[in-house]
Amino acid sequence: MKNNFKRYIRSIPDFPRKGILFRDITTLLKNPKIFKKVMDIFAQRYRGKKIDSVVAVEARGFIFGSVLAYKLNAGFVPVRKKGKLPAPTVEVTYSLEYGEDTLALHKDALKKGKRVLIVDDLLATGGTIKAVTELVEKLGAKIVECLFLIELTSLNGRKQLEKYSVFSLIKY
Amino acid sequence: MKNNFKRYIRSIPDFPRKGILFRDITTLLKNPKIFKKVMDIFAQRYRGKKIDSVVAVEARGFIFGSVLAYKLNAGFVPVRKKGKLPAPTVEVTYSLEYGEDTLALHKDALKKGKRVLIVDDLLATGGTIKAVTELVEKLGAKIVECLFLIELTSLNGRKQLEKYSVFSLIKY
Repeated sequence: MKNNFKRYIRSIPDFPRKGILFRDITTLLKNPKIFKKVMDIFAQRYRGKKIDSVVAVEARGFIFGSVLAYKLNAGFVPVRKKGKLPAPTVEVTYSLEYGEDTLALHKDALKKGKRVLIVDDLLATGGTIKAVTELVEKLGAKIVECLFLIELTSLNGRKQLEKYSVFSLIKY
Repeated sequence: MKNNFKRYIRSIPDFPRKGILFRDITTLLKNPKIFKKVMDIFAQRYRGKKIDSVVAVEARGFIFGSVLAYKLNAGFVPVRKKGKLPAPTVEVTYSLEYGEDTLALHKDALKKGKRVLIVDDLLATGGTIKAVTELVEKLGAKIVECLFLIELTSLNGRKQLEKYSVFSLIKY
């Protein structure tokens, strides 16, 4: 059942640069039945888990995070690149393959002790989501799980998230 | 009823630069009841309208567009900044206040004659959404309506979209 979803992911060699095999999810998203099925599986997983807020990462994470927030009667909380959120933020800077990046979260986005689900489309090296967990913990909220549509297992991103429960639907 | 929603929008002066009053929707998104109410009003509007695909603009447009695609049993189709979509695209370059920008849409994202709803969070001058309508028309799809959470009426964005039906929930 799970493995069926791979048929809807398009693999594109040498994007965004030579040697990278890009997993393109737009072919899954544009298929109404498959998109709905994926979202229903995700929502079912968190029924009764008392999720207060879904925290999703700009930009593709928003696609899955907002549907989940809606389905779980939770709030939707965006994590964005530094400089895009207008009110006071907490920030975390993390290393990329080349250089570094800074993510931000509004200080008033989550209250202490609230139960949070973190959502992104892809778990690769885990650097981005590690930064998101740090942002959420700065605000004292509790991370119930980190959810991904796709996990690139060879990049071992779970190691960065050892402290947390991690779930992915499609593994390469 | 509609006007109630303004209570959940936070207005932040001088962001992203002096003289701009920024309408911050994160305070609406983080409130589960209000987020749900907004999405239910949107979905209700398009029930029975046979929407095949929801086209949404990176990044905040994704938040509303994906829930609508899910609720309407439609496909979700992202419009992104040039260089982010991995397969062949159509592109449109449009003017910004300073400089210009290029938006892209996968060529295989929409089929000719399909019924499309275009979604973004904010209608300001209308330049972005005008470019999105051009992308959708390049692929021969039919635009049922352009939907926005917020419209800044003084900027007269509707004028750029005269050919289309336009709906916004909150007007300033």
